[in-house]
Amino acid sequence: METEFEFLKVLLMLFVVFCSAKAASFVFNRIGVPGLVGEILVGVIFASVMFGDTTIAESLGLYNGSGADREETEIYHVLEVFSELGVMFLLFSVGLETRVKDLMSVGKAAFLVAMLGVLVPFVFGYAYVEYFYDGNMYHALFLGAAMVATSVGITARVIKDMRLTDAKESRIIIGAAVIDDILGMIVLAVVSGMAKSGEIDIGNIAVVTISAFAFVILIMLFSYFVVPKIKQKVQKYNDAKFEKDKDYIPTKFNMLILGIALCFGFAYLAEFIGLAAIIGAFLAGMIFADYAVIWGLEEKTEAINSLLVSFFFVNVGMKVNLSGVDTNLVITIVVVIVLAILGKYIGCSAGAKLGDKSLGGSSMNIIGIGMVPRGEVGIIVASIGLKIIVDGGTAISTELYTVVVLMSVLTTIIAPPLLSAAFKKKYKTDYVVQPDDQL
Amino acid sequence: METEFEFLKVLLMLFVVFCSAKAASFVFNRIGVPGLVGEILVGVIFASVMFGDTTIAESLGLYNGSGADREETEIYHVLEVFSELGVMFLLFSVGLETRVKDLMSVGKAAFLVAMLGVLVPFVFGYAYVEYFYDGNMYHALFLGAAMVATSVGITARVIKDMRLTDAKESRIIIGAAVIDDILGMIVLAVVSGMAKSGEIDIGNIAVVTISAFAFVILIMLFSYFVVPKIKQKVQKYNDAKFEKDKDYIPTKFNMLILGIALCFGFAYLAEFIGLAAIIGAFLAGMIFADYAVIWGLEEKTEAINSLLVSFFFVNVGMKVNLSGVDTNLVITIVVVIVLAILGKYIGCSAGAKLGDKSLGGSSMNIIGIGMVPRGEVGIIVASIGLKIIVDGGTAISTELYTVVVLMSVLTTIIAPPLLSAAFKKKYKTDYVVQPDDQL
Repeated sequence: METEFEFLKVLLMLFVVFCSAKAASFVFNRIGVPGLVGEILVGVIFASVMFGDTTIAESLGLYNGSGADREETEIYHVLEVFSELGVMFLLFSVGLETRVKDLMSVGKAAFLVAMLGVLVPFVFGYAYVEYFYDGNMYHALFLGAAMVATSVGITARVIKDMRLTDAKESRIIIGAAVIDDILGMIVLAVVSGMAKSGEIDIGNIAVVTISAFAFVILIMLFSYFVVPKIKQKVQKYNDAKFEKDKDYIPTKFNMLILGIALCFGFAYLAEFIGLAAIIGAFLAGMIFADYAVIWGLEEKTEAINSLLVSFFFVNVGMKVNLSGVDTNLVITIVVVIVLAILGKYIGCSAGAKLGDKSLGGSSMNIIGIGMVPRGEVGIIVASIGLKIIVDGGTAISTELYTVVVLMSVLTTIIAPPLLSAAFKKKYKTDYVVQPDDQL
Repeated sequence: METEFEFLKVLLMLFVVFCSAKAASFVFNRIGVPGLVGEILVGVIFASVMFGDTTIAESLGLYNGSGADREETEIYHVLEVFSELGVMFLLFSVGLETRVKDLMSVGKAAFLVAMLGVLVPFVFGYAYVEYFYDGNMYHALFLGAAMVATSVGITARVIKDMRLTDAKESRIIIGAAVIDDILGMIVLAVVSGMAKSGEIDIGNIAVVTISAFAFVILIMLFSYFVVPKIKQKVQKYNDAKFEKDKDYIPTKFNMLILGIALCFGFAYLAEFIGLAAIIGAFLAGMIFADYAVIWGLEEKTEAINSLLVSFFFVNVGMKVNLSGVDTNLVITIVVVIVLAILGKYIGCSAGAKLGDKSLGGSSMNIIGIGMVPRGEVGIIVASIGLKIIVDGGTAISTELYTVVVLMSVLTTIIAPPLLSAAFKKKYKTDYVVQPDDQL
């Protein structure tokens, strides 16, 4: 059965979803909880709370039927496109903030923090599913991959709000979070490559790893050689015009157009060769990182994000199936959250000490806590797993998807207050986190 | 038959359409033709040029089949949503530049230019279809309505590029173009209201006119009373925080979120009560006009427009049916273009003289030419007519739709060089229009 496709209905859906998400985000920010948690909650409510015979999602025309029987409509597909583009532009903007040079300069400590911070949680997640949960290798791989990535956004936000950007621990955390993001993307590429081909042979892993690396290297070359050339060309063009006419106002080329084109293009390419679209978008952002500020790309992308990103988190919430939560799943959730926190804390504080012997216990503590929040990245990894079909099932089960969403949300809620307490203890700053600088 | 809905396919479609449109726009701007002409042309080529058995539009999954037999797919519906949102945000940004106070101050001349500039072309267009073309009243009303609105964007752009913003004629043109936009919206509201109800009774016209005016007044009240209140609230909030902490950096609320919410909301409301979504979007923009600059709304909306607007013009082009063009239609096109130019030229120069006796022939000439370009507004009106079904047909025929698109495109191409020549003759400025300040 098909719900009739009408622009009026689409507009109503967009209006209701957008306003609810932003209102929830605003309220949650006010009470000191990251806004994305509110947006996810809106999705959960829309999809599962019944009013009379229907859920809100149904009355907005997103589904026919509810619960396990629901069928997606064309209107839902519009929301899905918005959601996918939202997460693409979110990762594009993270890429814009990731300078290759900065990565090179943060040094050994950040690198070791990132490496161990990826390795330990991955092993914890993988081992738990493989030996103590359902034993499905793909589920194990995806849970491991979802536990890997630290949310640079959340971490950076707390540090910025504490005004401790220059503290040694802060620089290590930010550097590590960025490297961690790239490692996380590679882990995701390898894991989803394995799941898509449904094979485990080493040759395959090697191909995926090599193509992921080749892609990253290609993009780095692009950012080193092509983008500065474009910059020079624009400069030359304006200089030549100015030569002829002293009153000439430099032509401002709208580099956002080039950015969007590359974001679409690399996302398609990445998805096409078996990586995820967001990896392409992230790398497209990295290409422009050196010029993101002077070309105003960060601000402009943020405007697009204001429009699109909330749809992603609402969609995340709509996929959470609360009716499937029983005592067993609650135990799993608690275990996974504990493993997620311990994995990052142990891996990262050990990595910090290994990389820089001069760091004391309080610094190790700050770095360990600072790397805990998973934010959107864990959720993104799990959503990708939900779309891959392998051995007659999805590469991550719907139960584990719900576990990952809750794990990501809870580590994100827990970390900021703990991190600011740890910083406060060490640096004696008495500063309250600004709750309402909206997305 | 349904084309399978896959994000990968959607992404490819978005990438190809976006890049082709932007490339065409860039090339056309370079040779001195407004970029939207290039974008429309891309749409025409995509929909009608055959490569082997298929058009580009078909191979992108937008249609099944081509020509008159084509069926829209889900992927096309995604493009359509992008296109509709694109034109909404375009009108939202025009609204952002339309200050109620400025409208009040430009005086009698601008008002009379606008009034006669609406009346004469409407009568020309209506009379032509009613007495010399197919005699269908709705076709006549829509052709009249499509001939009414001057494109503020194109006109303002030429004046800005000539650096003659302060010339008397410029101020009258801009003022008139803005009033003309609002009158055009009211004409559109009345005409589409009549077509939707399929009736001609005076009561109905009165209801549509009154609801259009009520809507405009509601929004003006909103912009006078509610928006300044929001401004004060933000100020107070920051002052209170600053009182407690002298290091406090003012919280920057992202007003774009409020803007998008109102844009969606008013667009829905307008469409729901029988006006067009773009009228709501335009009025939502007007609400913020006084604060558009300090809240950075213009820049932010422009970023969203960079992403979305091209999809609208490509879609416009895809609806042009070149296979229907025969000798008769060519005559119609030529007649309509001549009427469109003469209608504006006569109406506006007469209006200018009536309003300000001191204006000489050269000024009347400048004002007459300056109001000629129809740009996107005529096309938007015609696209709305194409969606309304009345008396078993669309409110504007596909032939007349093609005529309107060509009329809008050609008046837009013709006017800028004529206007700059007229200005140059009077003000002796020797300044070349900057062709490449991209959208």
